[in-house]
Amino acid sequence: MTATSFFTSRWIEAPPNAVEVAGGGLPRGFRAAGVACGIKESGARDLGLLVSDATETTSAARFSRSGALSAPVLLSQERSRLHALRGVVVNSGNANAATGARGLEDAARMQEGAAGACGLSEDAVAVASTGVIGVPLPMDAITRGLASAAGELRPDGDLDFAEAIRTTDAYAKHVTLDLALSDGTVRLSVQGKGAGMISPHFATLLVFVQTDAVLDADEADLLLSVCVKRSFDRISVDGQLSTSDTIAFMASGASGVRVEPETDDERAFGEAMDAALRQLALLVARDGEGARRVGRVIVRGGDPAAVERVAHAVGDSPLVKTALYGGDPNWGRVIQAVGAAMPGTAPLPVDIAIEGIQVCAHGARVPHDSEALTAAVQRDEVEYEIGLPGEGAETERFFSDLGHEYVTINAEYTT
Amino acid sequence: MTATSFFTSRWIEAPPNAVEVAGGGLPRGFRAAGVACGIKESGARDLGLLVSDATETTSAARFSRSGALSAPVLLSQERSRLHALRGVVVNSGNANAATGARGLEDAARMQEGAAGACGLSEDAVAVASTGVIGVPLPMDAITRGLASAAGELRPDGDLDFAEAIRTTDAYAKHVTLDLALSDGTVRLSVQGKGAGMISPHFATLLVFVQTDAVLDADEADLLLSVCVKRSFDRISVDGQLSTSDTIAFMASGASGVRVEPETDDERAFGEAMDAALRQLALLVARDGEGARRVGRVIVRGGDPAAVERVAHAVGDSPLVKTALYGGDPNWGRVIQAVGAAMPGTAPLPVDIAIEGIQVCAHGARVPHDSEALTAAVQRDEVEYEIGLPGEGAETERFFSDLGHEYVTINAEYTT
Repeated sequence: MTATSFFTSRWIEAPPNAVEVAGGGLPRGFRAAGVACGIKESGARDLGLLVSDATETTSAARFSRSGALSAPVLLSQERSRLHALRGVVVNSGNANAATGARGLEDAARMQEGAAGACGLSEDAVAVASTGVIGVPLPMDAITRGLASAAGELRPDGDLDFAEAIRTTDAYAKHVTLDLALSDGTVRLSVQGKGAGMISPHFATLLVFVQTDAVLDADEADLLLSVCVKRSFDRISVDGQLSTSDTIAFMASGASGVRVEPETDDERAFGEAMDAALRQLALLVARDGEGARRVGRVIVRGGDPAAVERVAHAVGDSPLVKTALYGGDPNWGRVIQAVGAAMPGTAPLPVDIAIEGIQVCAHGARVPHDSEALTAAVQRDEVEYEIGLPGEGAETERFFSDLGHEYVTINAEYTT
Repeated sequence: MTATSFFTSRWIEAPPNAVEVAGGGLPRGFRAAGVACGIKESGARDLGLLVSDATETTSAARFSRSGALSAPVLLSQERSRLHALRGVVVNSGNANAATGARGLEDAARMQEGAAGACGLSEDAVAVASTGVIGVPLPMDAITRGLASAAGELRPDGDLDFAEAIRTTDAYAKHVTLDLALSDGTVRLSVQGKGAGMISPHFATLLVFVQTDAVLDADEADLLLSVCVKRSFDRISVDGQLSTSDTIAFMASGASGVRVEPETDDERAFGEAMDAALRQLALLVARDGEGARRVGRVIVRGGDPAAVERVAHAVGDSPLVKTALYGGDPNWGRVIQAVGAAMPGTAPLPVDIAIEGIQVCAHGARVPHDSEALTAAVQRDEVEYEIGLPGEGAETERFFSDLGHEYVTINAEYTT
């Protein structure tokens, strides 16, 4: 793979048989648009529409598990055929959450409006909203925006669509890959947003994935499951679970290239999708509301539950995050987080290495080159390896730092 | 109770039959000192010593449950008679944590040194250390400091002792109360430190409580249990559990006034101790590494586990904390935290009131006076009431905000 601009992290291997399409563009069968309808006071794009023109389109979707789900998440789960979606309508600037019966009616009107504008049945459309909680949607603006977006649907509308779903994101996040399989080339495109409230179970995160490969709905669902577990389930900006998380994967089949289960083609397709979603997850962590640095914690040990718990504790720790922000080689913050995740196990023989420099063995400091460590923790990406007793289990987690910009953004979010 | 300076919060009722002693002072039988031995580069006091001269002293203690316990916590749990402590030695500026075998030897030398200097058996002394993790203790400084502190032990040494145990605390935290019981007056004094890494299970928190009442060791233990559950177990600065938390309660019996179990006297003593520890816990949250405001969340509902989970989620949420810091009336942050703690329950009919102003009923926004709400969240103390379905369970939690000072302090802790 050459001339990549998306796979920027040393932690994500670019898929070997994929070519990144520099200018973007959707897979065959898809059209998208993103317009400004007036929800955002800034006048930026805030309504996105994405449709598949192929009647045989298959799909899969995942949502937040919050007890306080937004109206569009409740509606999409109840009223959309999630294995046969052909359209998604998304607004930014307002989450339509904690809005009661009126919110559910508004989400239904968005679904109806998008279906009508695109000539789809209502249950083929999923709805997503992101932004402020507890404020009713301005439905006149959305109705006007829907008409305008429907008129602008284009095969290369993915960049406008990616713009329209942004909230506090510092930049739009999208990628288009062409992937050579044994029966021909298929395209995979992804648009995502997310910079805050990113938690153990992927949060205020909207991700849309399209391909023109022919995929059974079950296969699409399985591919999405595996990729989400390895990407958006493994990032933390601030440990917060959103009301609104939505991930939708749609396969138009318009390339005519079938991806059969348990073949080399499926493996290659899965690798490309995995790399794209992991890099996107890392971009979300990096864009974590003003983040300066991004961390990766790898935890190994014998107890899979403990390994996951420790990875969460380190990635979510505000003390680890502020030290990362400050470029402070204070590994005491790391062992503190490990210990907190393993109550009652002291003395725990934990090993810690930062950027390959071992600082702690069997729970105690080991002599190390502190100048090299100080230089290492000032890089853009900092890797922490943690060894717990035993072998056989391993996980990783990406996390943003915690700095002044996070405080500034979130202290004045609605004011 | 008149002329109080300690019970400053509207949330803590001052104990009715207690008088605050403005200048401090220990209960009969106790002496304390706090000296500068050179651990802190600033030259501030960093070694504290507290002893009871009464041979019949009873005691009780509680420690962090972290898997990465500091050497003094491990040593005190293994080698001290926790129901019959007569001395504590504490240093600040260095936690003696993640220091391996050398750390355990150093903690043992601190215990020996303090016992020798005060004429106590080693197992009557508990050791505590707080400060940076992973750096060996400067034992020469500590040895010199011990000799100096032993020479300065005084009945009114509690203020110097409270100074000597500070780390990032903005101010020393202590109180002395005289309490009229049916057989005479007893004194209760408390010294505490804690401003960061304060978590669900009381964290980098050192608290020392003394009385001259006559208490059985079992009774002391029970009183401490109840009070800790209602105070230090219910505060959050940043959700982090420390390597070093220690709480020690000692009763010298030197007043000759016995507090019998299940009497009005025990109730009065317990109320005073409860109020003192809850106010101290609130001071720790207020001093939460640069905190501007402190929040109290009260959660009611039918499921005790859910009630606790929601209180933790709200109190630990960086989004709720940054909104509190900013004086931002963004109650969407609160419902987001509630929902995250109750996965799979949507739509959850949650009620939310802030400073008595109801903003959300049955999961949806209710019209409210937003100007009054904006004014209310800019006060020093902000109260959040959350109603979950059902009745019978209730808890509270105090938490600090998350502001620029927290980031600044923790980004550059070791540099």
